[in-house]
Amino acid sequence: MYQLIYWPMLQGRGELVRLLLEDAGAPYDDVARRPADEGGGIDAVREHMHGEGEGAPGFAPPFLIDGELKLAQVGAVCAYLGPRHGLSPDDEAGRMRALQLQLTVVDVIGEVHDTHHPIASSLYYDEQRPEAERAARAFREQRLPTWLDYFERVLESGGGDYLLGTQACYADLGLFQLVQGLRFAFPVATERALAGAPAVVALEDRVAARPRIAAYLKSERRIPWGKDGIFRHYAELDG
Amino acid sequence: MYQLIYWPMLQGRGELVRLLLEDAGAPYDDVARRPADEGGGIDAVREHMHGEGEGAPGFAPPFLIDGELKLAQVGAVCAYLGPRHGLSPDDEAGRMRALQLQLTVVDVIGEVHDTHHPIASSLYYDEQRPEAERAARAFREQRLPTWLDYFERVLESGGGDYLLGTQACYADLGLFQLVQGLRFAFPVATERALAGAPAVVALEDRVAARPRIAAYLKSERRIPWGKDGIFRHYAELDG
Repeated sequence: MYQLIYWPMLQGRGELVRLLLEDAGAPYDDVARRPADEGGGIDAVREHMHGEGEGAPGFAPPFLIDGELKLAQVGAVCAYLGPRHGLSPDDEAGRMRALQLQLTVVDVIGEVHDTHHPIASSLYYDEQRPEAERAARAFREQRLPTWLDYFERVLESGGGDYLLGTQACYADLGLFQLVQGLRFAFPVATERALAGAPAVVALEDRVAARPRIAAYLKSERRIPWGKDGIFRHYAELDG
Repeated sequence: MYQLIYWPMLQGRGELVRLLLEDAGAPYDDVARRPADEGGGIDAVREHMHGEGEGAPGFAPPFLIDGELKLAQVGAVCAYLGPRHGLSPDDEAGRMRALQLQLTVVDVIGEVHDTHHPIASSLYYDEQRPEAERAARAFREQRLPTWLDYFERVLESGGGDYLLGTQACYADLGLFQLVQGLRFAFPVATERALAGAPAVVALEDRVAARPRIAAYLKSERRIPWGKDGIFRHYAELDG
């Protein structure tokens, strides 16, 4: 069974791995979500941070442990798991395209994080709120429509139901998560931007309707959106 | 022959691809560096930006074209090229580890960019200079030593001359580029932080001495450090 090690109180980048494993129906132990007296809690994450802990050094979670293998970086973890579970094309070009698209999703997630923490992750939001308001405005007005237009083009160019055509890959799950997070964090700006991206909205609906994803979203395994995650809703950053 | 499409006036993320191709001795056409009347210049990049242009849509450069394949995202491009040119382990776990490490290098490069552009890439430095000074201080004091300590641990854990042991992979070239860029952008802070990372410095020297890298660094193909790149030197951001 896989072990996934990620912050237990937020979806974050780890959710791209959780969605892949859930859609695949692959059993996994979400280690840090165990009770604290069974090895869970944030200490379970911290013991692997910044190169610490058993196995190959990784800098930040998510960490995936599969037997002897310990892997970090969400792009690498998904590139490893995707082909094992039918959520990636088999051919080399297709595998690289899936990775490219997921890395692009991860880039947008990073930009979303930086809207509320533009100066430093180590400072509180209230210590960088005026800067966050400027950063969020640029994100909403310039980047958000540009990103969504990009994914719209990818879907149009593939000509199928999913980013790479007729078969879903892990990047489709990533794009679903991104759009859901954007709706939570920036409901006004996202609604406006999605008006120009009907294929992205259709993809979002299609992923949400996949049976294992639908079951997961209703389960207690899905951590609710909240105030500690990468996607956060501050009314002053939306509009 | 490969076509590489990247900004012709700066090293940026594209340099991780150039270093891989140079170390491999692989012939490539650095398209945007051709004269403008032979298809070069920034228009050669712009025609592929944000999903435009021939081939599979990519958001931002570097773009690699190899016959029918068009690929974006530096991590995906290196994951594609590395095993073809002996700059990646052959086994799956090793390939994923090389990708993980290169994605980590790319993350640090992104943080460096954000020290001088913390609010928005679309604004000039002078429009976000006070914010840049705060962001750079946090980067110098907290992140830079933490990142270098991490790579030091990776090198120690591998027990060899390179990040993954005795054989160089493309992430070693990436780490070399990162350290060189840090020295250019933050000479004072980097010198101080590298005092605690002797294995990183040894790796930097080892990569610089690889014959094809040494020849490349002396050639006109290596774009000089400058004021437009991701790595920029502003005295007020160092210290």
